[in-house]
Amino acid sequence: MESSSSAAAVETAVTVPPPSTFDVSRRPDTAGLVLNSPRPPSLREELVGVVGKAFRPHGSGRRPPRWAWALAALQAVFPVLQWGRSYTLKSFRSDVMAGLTLASLGIPQSIGYANLAKLDPQYGLYTSVVPPLIYAVMGTSREIAIGPVAVVSLLLSSMVQKVVDPAADPVTYRTLVFTVTFLAGVFQVSFGLFRLGFLVDFLSHAAIVGFMGGAAIVIGLQQLKGLLGLSRFTNSTDVVAVAKAVFSALHDPWHPGNFFIGCSFLIFILATRFIGRKYKKLFWLSAISPLLSVILSTAAVYATKADKHGVKIIREVHAGLNPSSVKQIQLNGPYTTECAKIAVICAVIALTEAIAVGRSFATIRGYKLDGNKEMIAMGFSNVAGSLSSCYVATGSFSRTAVNFSAGARSTVSNIVMAATVFIALEFFMKLLYYTPMAVLASIILSALPGLIDIREACNIWRVDKMDFLICLGAFLGVLFGSVEIGLGVALAISFAKIIIQSLRPQVEVLGRLQGTNTFCSVRQYPVACRTPAVQVIRIDTSFLCFINATFIKERIMEWVRAEVDTSNEKVRERVHSVVLDMSNVVNIDTSGLVGLEEIHKELASLGIQMAIASPGWQAIQKMKLAHLVDRIGEEWIFLTVGEAVEGCLTAHKGSAMEC
Amino acid sequence: MESSSSAAAVETAVTVPPPSTFDVSRRPDTAGLVLNSPRPPSLREELVGVVGKAFRPHGSGRRPPRWAWALAALQAVFPVLQWGRSYTLKSFRSDVMAGLTLASLGIPQSIGYANLAKLDPQYGLYTSVVPPLIYAVMGTSREIAIGPVAVVSLLLSSMVQKVVDPAADPVTYRTLVFTVTFLAGVFQVSFGLFRLGFLVDFLSHAAIVGFMGGAAIVIGLQQLKGLLGLSRFTNSTDVVAVAKAVFSALHDPWHPGNFFIGCSFLIFILATRFIGRKYKKLFWLSAISPLLSVILSTAAVYATKADKHGVKIIREVHAGLNPSSVKQIQLNGPYTTECAKIAVICAVIALTEAIAVGRSFATIRGYKLDGNKEMIAMGFSNVAGSLSSCYVATGSFSRTAVNFSAGARSTVSNIVMAATVFIALEFFMKLLYYTPMAVLASIILSALPGLIDIREACNIWRVDKMDFLICLGAFLGVLFGSVEIGLGVALAISFAKIIIQSLRPQVEVLGRLQGTNTFCSVRQYPVACRTPAVQVIRIDTSFLCFINATFIKERIMEWVRAEVDTSNEKVRERVHSVVLDMSNVVNIDTSGLVGLEEIHKELASLGIQMAIASPGWQAIQKMKLAHLVDRIGEEWIFLTVGEAVEGCLTAHKGSAMEC
Repeated sequence: MESSSSAAAVETAVTVPPPSTFDVSRRPDTAGLVLNSPRPPSLREELVGVVGKAFRPHGSGRRPPRWAWALAALQAVFPVLQWGRSYTLKSFRSDVMAGLTLASLGIPQSIGYANLAKLDPQYGLYTSVVPPLIYAVMGTSREIAIGPVAVVSLLLSSMVQKVVDPAADPVTYRTLVFTVTFLAGVFQVSFGLFRLGFLVDFLSHAAIVGFMGGAAIVIGLQQLKGLLGLSRFTNSTDVVAVAKAVFSALHDPWHPGNFFIGCSFLIFILATRFIGRKYKKLFWLSAISPLLSVILSTAAVYATKADKHGVKIIREVHAGLNPSSVKQIQLNGPYTTECAKIAVICAVIALTEAIAVGRSFATIRGYKLDGNKEMIAMGFSNVAGSLSSCYVATGSFSRTAVNFSAGARSTVSNIVMAATVFIALEFFMKLLYYTPMAVLASIILSALPGLIDIREACNIWRVDKMDFLICLGAFLGVLFGSVEIGLGVALAISFAKIIIQSLRPQVEVLGRLQGTNTFCSVRQYPVACRTPAVQVIRIDTSFLCFINATFIKERIMEWVRAEVDTSNEKVRERVHSVVLDMSNVVNIDTSGLVGLEEIHKELASLGIQMAIASPGWQAIQKMKLAHLVDRIGEEWIFLTVGEAVEGCLTAHKGSAMEC
Repeated sequence: MESSSSAAAVETAVTVPPPSTFDVSRRPDTAGLVLNSPRPPSLREELVGVVGKAFRPHGSGRRPPRWAWALAALQAVFPVLQWGRSYTLKSFRSDVMAGLTLASLGIPQSIGYANLAKLDPQYGLYTSVVPPLIYAVMGTSREIAIGPVAVVSLLLSSMVQKVVDPAADPVTYRTLVFTVTFLAGVFQVSFGLFRLGFLVDFLSHAAIVGFMGGAAIVIGLQQLKGLLGLSRFTNSTDVVAVAKAVFSALHDPWHPGNFFIGCSFLIFILATRFIGRKYKKLFWLSAISPLLSVILSTAAVYATKADKHGVKIIREVHAGLNPSSVKQIQLNGPYTTECAKIAVICAVIALTEAIAVGRSFATIRGYKLDGNKEMIAMGFSNVAGSLSSCYVATGSFSRTAVNFSAGARSTVSNIVMAATVFIALEFFMKLLYYTPMAVLASIILSALPGLIDIREACNIWRVDKMDFLICLGAFLGVLFGSVEIGLGVALAISFAKIIIQSLRPQVEVLGRLQGTNTFCSVRQYPVACRTPAVQVIRIDTSFLCFINATFIKERIMEWVRAEVDTSNEKVRERVHSVVLDMSNVVNIDTSGLVGLEEIHKELASLGIQMAIASPGWQAIQKMKLAHLVDRIGEEWIFLTVGEAVEGCLTAHKGSAMEC
């Protein structure tokens, strides 16, 4: 309590100065601090700081010996070396259980997503083997489940098929897919190395909600092909094209058997999920229900010979471990530029999903996820994947949740999953011959409700209308245009929002809270009273720049003129000073400085004194450099609004007494 | 003094509360205000406000009778009706003198700029007749001189000649120029009507300095053709192309007579300007020196028959008043889209120059220039001009300065100038037959130093390195690329700067100024002391949004973790609370809210209490809507940092005593 009572004592001394000694006694105490603050870091120093920080190893200030540094570096690249030492048998048992559960969900999902990516089923399974193994030794998230995911599969196929038609030329299509995967991995690694993690933030929360919702509906519509057993279908992903394709296909003869199988297993999977949610102990039921569906439906088709009656089946699946695809990566082929463009989008979307998944579970478990390390781990997973016939892998929402619920303790569960998938690839591929396509569609469909978050969309609408616009833009863009258009719309609105926010900042009139020395916006706090004779105006932007300097100047002058006009002759004396509260103005550019100088000149031409309170660090530095402080007068720069108001009142009283 | 002493008294009461009654007695006074502030205007209300304000007549609250309203509307459109009533004979005499001086400078400049715009000399003179007359009745600036200017002439010719070569097809070229002028006028009027005046602000101070400098050098290089009397020359404007053209032309025989005439009159004009600056009374000498040069050089060429010896002369100039060009405006021709693009750029650049000129002189004279009205006036001037064979007119820097120095009182000086040019067009065009081209080049060259502001460029370098980058980008873009490239580069860097500013905001640790209740950044004010046990962090951005939420979260958590780590076991108790000073955060989006919630969760997982001080109006509203206030706890929202720190200390003491 000691310090605060002395603070109060000084406060008293400060707010009731003897008017005559004002100029001499008070300024050195606080206001002088504003002008004599140290020089802020220059642009060069800041850049050096950012770059240096990026490449300096994390941690304490003590310099460790060389071998320890090497170990630390190794541990930084391979976190497994860190947690591996304290890994226990008990954790291993949990991880094996989680890994097996994960595999039972992952195998059917991988086959389905490969279908969505317009690749043969085994490529989905390949993607569930290599990337998880690489991630397991490099990643920092403990729960994330790596493998093919719905949105990236859709993204990849919808963009690559514009370059090469997978039906007409599946070999070239695969080549492009591997090239895109390789480049996406390279981009992800470079994002991590160059600390470009913020690129992932460019997709705002609202944009992701809208984008995921739109993508889920588009993916669902694509499943109509499998669900209805159609042979002809559109390559476009937008609603209108799909509706047309379905409508025209319904005129051909179609086989209700497909629809029956798909719907009944969809209902089965959703029912088990409902049960799993209700009785936490039965959650494994929901995890294995897709695998169960595959087994049951395959057995049923085999037994009833339904494939002879129009039920579409997978047929031949290539067995055996991932073949090498090193020679299929074309880095100077005719389509490389196209591939690079697609790779950038895939890399960002894959990272966005992985980091969103990883972060949400890390927050639950209370540990910190290093975004840049995650990017490097994901990138290496994809580079290694692209060399072994995998397509772009990332963290899956649905499987990560299962992994977490199944009690995974570390990335070992990913290794167990990969091993299980490997065994399946080696021995059980023949059994998939009779698996109906419709059941794959139902497995994909069952994963979609998790991507559509209507409640969050409603929340966004309630909280922030502009954000809802972004969400809606992404949603409708994906639905009626394409995935890229949806992303483009969301990005454009997001950045426009930032520009608009800078374009028309608030300029608030402040008033004193009765009985305190606190000044607040009179609009936000109607109890605040304007100080007579001294108008206090706060500039509510952190960057006073070319885009808003004129606007701010005009708003301020409008108010001051209105005040001067309405108060006629007798009250002209009333507003003799304007205090600009610049506490929010962190930075300023030369246009902003010109604007401030114009305000000062225009106020001076009206006979009004301008004072500035608590300017930001960069702002006051630039004002000093531009000699604006000299023109305004050092004695009119104050540390707090309260002091500025007192200063203006005292000075005016002094000059009035002199008259 | 009454209020401030009572303020101090309450301050004392506030800062030294009896700890036991803290929760009950203090909160309703100030902190409750934060939560119970009125709802801020919604997006819809703000939009309605902006639109309503745009179309409501200015002025006082009293509703005038209908006829008065009509008069006010007429006066708003034609300001001449307002100032015309108080116009005196004395003002008229000043205006006539100023107008005549203006004409003596304007006639030779107009001919030169027409040459720069690749039009016949009379078109420059036409442009000095109609637009000034229209502006005179609609404009609000009193000093501005309307007519052709160097930069817009260059811009127009450099862009239109890419569509049609003026040497090969002068008729189509003229058609396009008039169409561009018409469309530019229409754009300008619409900018004014829809209050899009801020578009002019998109070109920052630094960008204009760089752009003007680059354009001046490009214009100067174009004058080498006239100065050296070259027949072949490049159509490109960039330095490299011009250097090549000059170099290759010098191999041909060239006539030093042109160079001699040009240089000697350039020296003459610059010398008279120097004298005019030194002896204010002789400033008229600098104003009439261009006209004098034209007369002297024409007489000299006529007397010596120099045109027979290689001196290039203007030859035939079409006499008579502006012919109609209504039929030459093609609004659905093959080039209309091209014309519209060029027109947008010309419209913005012309307005930027006009408003910059107008504002600087309005500030000197102490009256307010209405940006939107100016745009409408300029727009109508150009629309009327395009119908009467004029090209894009705007306010000229050099002529406005002369007009001001010559004592212009109102736009009547523009009318006098237009009348004088009209007389010249009618009667003296024959006399221009022998005027050498080189003297036109020297007149244009003499106007260029005013456009190159090296001192301001140095100032920009000193004050703001990023702004200097913009300046340099515009300069080099114009010089080595083209005018559009220069503008594009400047705009791109400017907007990138705003995004970068939002991307990586400062997050500052605050400390208490010894003996006060003021909290400041410990970096800006090294005398400020950090409060033990309570870490105070200020978020220095006005918009906590998707682009910076993660960054801010990570910075805050980094500090808190560092604090917790270094202080080992015994001091773990030390940091028990984190106060986020959100006074700078005016607005927030859903990603920002998610970020805040994550900070709260992560702090909670470390056993640290989070408190929020003085959030902005929109920010607290959205936090309430998103139920974030409920999750943080209403009792942890405070009005000021001081109260938040006291609150945290008291609460911790309370809980410690309970233990």
